[in-house]
Amino acid sequence: MAADRRPELVVGVDYGTLSGRAVVVRVEDGAELGSATHEYPHGVLDRQLPDGTPLGPDWALQVPADYIDVLRIAVPAALEAAAADPAQVIAIGTDFTACTMVPTTEDGTPLNEVEGNAGEPHAYVKLWKHHAAQPQADRINALAAKRGEAWLPRYGGLISSEWEFAKGLQLLEESPEIYRATAHWVEAADWIVWQLCGRYVRNACTAGYKGIFQDGTYPTRDFLAELHPDFAGFVDDLLQPVSGQLGTPAGRLTEQAAAWTGLPAGIVVAVGNVDAHVTAPAAQSTEAGQMLAIMGTSTCHIMNGGVLREVPGMCGVVDGGVTPGLWGYEAGQSGVGDIFNWFVTNAVPASYAEEAAARGLDVHELLTEKAAAQAVGEHGLLALDWHSGNRSVLVDHELSGLILGLTLSTRPEEIYRALIEATAFGTRVIVEAFEGSGVPVTEFVAAGGLLKNALLMQIYADVLDMPISVIRSEQGPALGSAIHAAVAAGAYPDIHAASAAMGGVERGAYHPDPARAAAYDVLFAEYRKLHDYFGRGTNDVMRRLRAIRREAHAGGAV
Amino acid sequence: MAADRRPELVVGVDYGTLSGRAVVVRVEDGAELGSATHEYPHGVLDRQLPDGTPLGPDWALQVPADYIDVLRIAVPAALEAAAADPAQVIAIGTDFTACTMVPTTEDGTPLNEVEGNAGEPHAYVKLWKHHAAQPQADRINALAAKRGEAWLPRYGGLISSEWEFAKGLQLLEESPEIYRATAHWVEAADWIVWQLCGRYVRNACTAGYKGIFQDGTYPTRDFLAELHPDFAGFVDDLLQPVSGQLGTPAGRLTEQAAAWTGLPAGIVVAVGNVDAHVTAPAAQSTEAGQMLAIMGTSTCHIMNGGVLREVPGMCGVVDGGVTPGLWGYEAGQSGVGDIFNWFVTNAVPASYAEEAAARGLDVHELLTEKAAAQAVGEHGLLALDWHSGNRSVLVDHELSGLILGLTLSTRPEEIYRALIEATAFGTRVIVEAFEGSGVPVTEFVAAGGLLKNALLMQIYADVLDMPISVIRSEQGPALGSAIHAAVAAGAYPDIHAASAAMGGVERGAYHPDPARAAAYDVLFAEYRKLHDYFGRGTNDVMRRLRAIRREAHAGGAV
Repeated sequence: MAADRRPELVVGVDYGTLSGRAVVVRVEDGAELGSATHEYPHGVLDRQLPDGTPLGPDWALQVPADYIDVLRIAVPAALEAAAADPAQVIAIGTDFTACTMVPTTEDGTPLNEVEGNAGEPHAYVKLWKHHAAQPQADRINALAAKRGEAWLPRYGGLISSEWEFAKGLQLLEESPEIYRATAHWVEAADWIVWQLCGRYVRNACTAGYKGIFQDGTYPTRDFLAELHPDFAGFVDDLLQPVSGQLGTPAGRLTEQAAAWTGLPAGIVVAVGNVDAHVTAPAAQSTEAGQMLAIMGTSTCHIMNGGVLREVPGMCGVVDGGVTPGLWGYEAGQSGVGDIFNWFVTNAVPASYAEEAAARGLDVHELLTEKAAAQAVGEHGLLALDWHSGNRSVLVDHELSGLILGLTLSTRPEEIYRALIEATAFGTRVIVEAFEGSGVPVTEFVAAGGLLKNALLMQIYADVLDMPISVIRSEQGPALGSAIHAAVAAGAYPDIHAASAAMGGVERGAYHPDPARAAAYDVLFAEYRKLHDYFGRGTNDVMRRLRAIRREAHAGGAV
Repeated sequence: MAADRRPELVVGVDYGTLSGRAVVVRVEDGAELGSATHEYPHGVLDRQLPDGTPLGPDWALQVPADYIDVLRIAVPAALEAAAADPAQVIAIGTDFTACTMVPTTEDGTPLNEVEGNAGEPHAYVKLWKHHAAQPQADRINALAAKRGEAWLPRYGGLISSEWEFAKGLQLLEESPEIYRATAHWVEAADWIVWQLCGRYVRNACTAGYKGIFQDGTYPTRDFLAELHPDFAGFVDDLLQPVSGQLGTPAGRLTEQAAAWTGLPAGIVVAVGNVDAHVTAPAAQSTEAGQMLAIMGTSTCHIMNGGVLREVPGMCGVVDGGVTPGLWGYEAGQSGVGDIFNWFVTNAVPASYAEEAAARGLDVHELLTEKAAAQAVGEHGLLALDWHSGNRSVLVDHELSGLILGLTLSTRPEEIYRALIEATAFGTRVIVEAFEGSGVPVTEFVAAGGLLKNALLMQIYADVLDMPISVIRSEQGPALGSAIHAAVAAGAYPDIHAASAAMGGVERGAYHPDPARAAAYDVLFAEYRKLHDYFGRGTNDVMRRLRAIRREAHAGGAV
């Protein structure tokens, strides 16, 4: 039949911080035939709820219905862009930001959609960059250290305020009613799969990296009770047993999801995954020592290693957390592109906006062009890239951004460059932490939206003093999800075979310049000194200012 | 005769950083009858000379012809605004920024006006905020400390890079040709008087505070030779003996200056003075313990004291340096309004400019309004106000600005408020240095352009936990110059009598709020900690970044 000769397709859907992207991919060779993006109508709620209810500092929420909109709008648009017949599609795979948590009823209805909850902040999705649970994370860490919990070293010695337990404890302590109304505390990665196939399948990746699931178990009831008596049942009552391995089917597309997406009911829905981890096979970077950095609003570092080592300040290490048979390491930087966007939105004067508009550039492009004209150190600035806290290696979201060296002649492009450099220094701290712990980084591979900034990539190569390889795809996570969908549908025997056929990478796309690398060594030493002074307890001024800020927002100030 | 019954007038001319202001004042009661301002056509040269010759970092030059323009344009305009008959004017007085240095020929011609010198940076006026002579200042300080020079403690233990000797040594070392061509190294305060009366009269105020003239002598030839063999004759050859006491006549208005100004030739020209010091009688703040802060682009603190004490990091103490019979102390902050202006020019987005324009506000007013809505500490920020270096108490222009506590939700008005607070903390450091040295500050009196910002004034009152008195005049330095002119012309027996009749102040215009003062105590402790960490040698990163920046600008970087 003619239909049989048309190529098989898979759909990957990547849920990012501000939008969801669907891509239609040819199973045979990974060709991306069409894609579409849908911005979340509500974006990130960090000042107030849709009804105007104000939010405290460091909050970041989302609206789950926005995720469904991506299925309804971006998936059909991608199919149309690909000129694809939906009947060709054999499977759909998804990935999500993490740790992003949805409190739901028994049937998976998000609590913010339950009548009477629209004005209750805790009923909404807590986005990965919701950083208001640091006090809870501090207590989890202190108690785990005191008790010598075996899982703690698997997370570099520190559990993040971004993760399931800290956010869950904050929920319990700040809104016991919503906590009691929560039947499931669901990773958004699993919630979207639940919406697609009608089954709640907890994926091994988020459970391992964000849910403290190690060696087959969660933290004990005893540990939880010591945190808070009412938290004792958190695992038993609110978390799902782990049932979904990466690259396997979670179920089949429901009639309702078929109606949303225009895809055939009954096709394979792959187990959920994390946007960073899912990208490794898309970048053909699954060998031990290949560190993949997915550089966007934040940066995630994903690397397989042949050995289990306790890397101080890493996000986590999970057996098979990226691909089977290797130890999957994760590290990250909470704010990268977010910092540049914050700067452009809040700190670049009208004259730059006008010049950019007149020349048909966006402001980032204009600042990058001007910054590229500077020699290393010419701006005299040094920044700490902690505007969104520090995920690795300090694991502290009470930290904050710093810029130093400002003079009356400092210009916006100089600060912009210093911010780029600060994020590169932050990456170097992570690379050195792995290497210092016996997990060598043999190759640095970059993916994500920041790839388009060649200056930034060159600065990273110079600061790291390493060549940088670059993913071929411009939509790595979505392609990675599609690759996982192909494996789940049985089109390839395993993820490695699928990666080889469908992924792609340009090796050594950027090379360090020896003179610039040497100049950056000097500046990195200064960065490291400030990093340790402010980040390791010598001067906890950032934490104290956060506390004062919280008190002021709570109405306790004058 | 009818003419005799018209009131006697004096003209005061205040030379600021960006413009000169003339005011016509009634001798009898200090009434300001008319004024006019003229902006210097060339402003501050900090990137390049008028012919495009590039300048290094930390340079700040001016063009002397701009000063003459003020005489030609602002003085006649002020007379016209006052509806004054020039025949009523009995004297003219002037004040100037300091230390601002003009290299001249034997007859006072600025070297930049000598043929062939238009492209030579060192031939121009070095403005007070020219901060490129820090290496020279460092050597002067080290040598003076080593030799135990008696004058060093009179300057708080440190000579500033802003002053005559550091700038002169930089001139010698970087441009020996221009140094050799310099017949006189003239304070602009004296240069303008020279243009008015045709005589070079060196005033005691700048000589004492900026020229290391103490107890009747300058630093020795021996000391100078040890700095640099060719510098041995700096005092003997380039500096004028001190001949002009404050409030005395320097000479009579020349025909040429009469033609420029429209004033009668032959009227009294008062000895030159510094913009800050000249203001004290205008603010009726000449008693011991009354600290007058002239708050504009920078802030100068002027205070008479009954005793001679060595205050660490003060700018200087000069016997009769402000008014006769008391020890005149000076301290200062190199950047205050300059920092706010830098911020508005370089770091406030288009949306704010648009909102301000739509509401008929300037951007400062809009930011102030938004900042006023914040509680103390609500922004979570802390800044160091060293964008233009630190004049007191660290006396180090290699220091630089810092902001800390930045988050992805930080808004421009929050940074703006943090910058205001940082300058208030800087003032408090100075007040505490005086008090800790046995020179009590009994009253804080404010003058200058920043008075118009009521939020800023209230923040200062809260941070200092002191009431703030406010000068009556909106043009304090120009009024102060007029008062000195009246004394020089013999209209009053001394400066105190003239001050009582012609000056004015509102006592206790701002009062601290106890709760806010207590909240600021906490933040000030954090400021002090960072101040000492970065400013007193624990981490000299700011100095190192400056050195790297200089090297990069000099072409030594990559």
